[in-house]
Amino acid sequence: MTPAQLVSTIDFRYITDALTPDEAIDLLARQQKSKPEREALLLTQGCPAYTTSTGWMGYSDNHVRQLCREALSQGWTHFKVKVGAAPEDDARRLAVVREAIGPDRKLMIDANQRWDVNEAIARVRELERFNLWWIEEPTSPDDVLGHALIAKAVKPIGVATGEHCPNRIVFKQLLQAQAIDFCQIDSCRLGGVNENLAVILLAAKFGVPVCPHAGGVGLCEYVQHISIFDYICVSASLENRVLEYVDHLHEHFVDPVVIRNGRYMPPQRPGYSIEMHAASLDQYSFPDGPVWRP
Amino acid sequence: MTPAQLVSTIDFRYITDALTPDEAIDLLARQQKSKPEREALLLTQGCPAYTTSTGWMGYSDNHVRQLCREALSQGWTHFKVKVGAAPEDDARRLAVVREAIGPDRKLMIDANQRWDVNEAIARVRELERFNLWWIEEPTSPDDVLGHALIAKAVKPIGVATGEHCPNRIVFKQLLQAQAIDFCQIDSCRLGGVNENLAVILLAAKFGVPVCPHAGGVGLCEYVQHISIFDYICVSASLENRVLEYVDHLHEHFVDPVVIRNGRYMPPQRPGYSIEMHAASLDQYSFPDGPVWRP
Repeated sequence: MTPAQLVSTIDFRYITDALTPDEAIDLLARQQKSKPEREALLLTQGCPAYTTSTGWMGYSDNHVRQLCREALSQGWTHFKVKVGAAPEDDARRLAVVREAIGPDRKLMIDANQRWDVNEAIARVRELERFNLWWIEEPTSPDDVLGHALIAKAVKPIGVATGEHCPNRIVFKQLLQAQAIDFCQIDSCRLGGVNENLAVILLAAKFGVPVCPHAGGVGLCEYVQHISIFDYICVSASLENRVLEYVDHLHEHFVDPVVIRNGRYMPPQRPGYSIEMHAASLDQYSFPDGPVWRP
Repeated sequence: MTPAQLVSTIDFRYITDALTPDEAIDLLARQQKSKPEREALLLTQGCPAYTTSTGWMGYSDNHVRQLCREALSQGWTHFKVKVGAAPEDDARRLAVVREAIGPDRKLMIDANQRWDVNEAIARVRELERFNLWWIEEPTSPDDVLGHALIAKAVKPIGVATGEHCPNRIVFKQLLQAQAIDFCQIDSCRLGGVNENLAVILLAAKFGVPVCPHAGGVGLCEYVQHISIFDYICVSASLENRVLEYVDHLHEHFVDPVVIRNGRYMPPQRPGYSIEMHAASLDQYSFPDGPVWRP
């Protein structure tokens, strides 16, 4: 599609104070010529990514060390750890991971909306000694102004959010208020590809990298397309852009993601990559699939 | 309930940066002693209100004049008109209403989210010659920063919104950003009485009057309790506080609102006033009630 055709699929209602259709066309047009170079690069090197699989709560410290070792041997360079438990527990687990991955690899934390605004600022500051790249979902996803306060207070640690943002209007405000340093759109939370396009272009206008949320069943399969589109057609940069990866349940998909050396390799088949195997659907269909039988 | 008991029913998660439980208790405690005076005043004079019934789109100008005459004879002092149609249509209908109600009565407009931010500012400015008290829902209800821009640009016309605000966190931001001059909570949109209490107390903290949204079937019956509680227990003021009124479908309620001289008279029976007549439920139950039969 031409830039004008692509932009014609986007609903600009309520965002024209931040981005007009003409500006969106310009954002796409400026990257047209160099698209083949970036496509070639992705096909050989893949999209940068991070793993959430080493950082879940509830694992023993030894298990976390083991998972970090495995992830390092697979080539991962960015690691995310869940926080929001008791402060001493958060600090202990971060110490384990930081020691395991060394001082130079990127370490992010994710509070999953656990804190109030002032609490978030205090808790992130307590943890900044672990050299953190971002704090994700420090507070309510509805709180644009709260995220802006947190972002200002915890610099240089970046604020990331978006997996629970329902639409382009909330993302517009997060960007206008300089409330986020990483824009975590989710291909299923937003209303379809078109709404994702709106947010990708808004993020480009404000110079904020798009790092899609993944991890849900099939979500890695979905969002790889968003990052690939963003790199080839919009941002033309991989700087500060990482796709989330969680290593489970990919076996149910006909065209599962391919991870090589901690990066997403572009899918080779057409489509959104989220067709499931017929056998999986049969097995797990609720309430009549065999796995649900007592 | 004592102030502490009442405050114990509120979920303060994500709003403590704007209002703490202790501050909420103080807001209630300061008005405790004088509650009987305000209760007595409401019982004789009722709650101030406004009518939306004269301002719907699609009426002929003559019909609007007739409705205004009737409303004036019933004692109404505040009138709301729907806008967001073609500019010349909005202006014509506002001219009709302003002429009918005279220069001193309050006139409000409601755009029902029709405009983008800059469009809203331009359109309201075009209409300011009609001496408007508020512009309601100028743009997306999710757009806190947009409402703040509009509020700044259209002063002294106030911005009103809230009927589509889902929770205390969005209201907190509307108040923090000075985006609203009238706080239009809705007893059914928010999650129950408790969430309404949170917003009433937030509004009191920021000095913004609560003017509940009504009009839906049974909504007038519900929200009168909110305004009565706000006046007696929290704000202790009727200044700039008006309850919406729409004159339809009250006949289906066991304890319908009583309007006298353009004001809501407090209900005399216990409860939330929204029990419907059994005969109405029988008649209109979908899909088996008789009114649905072909």
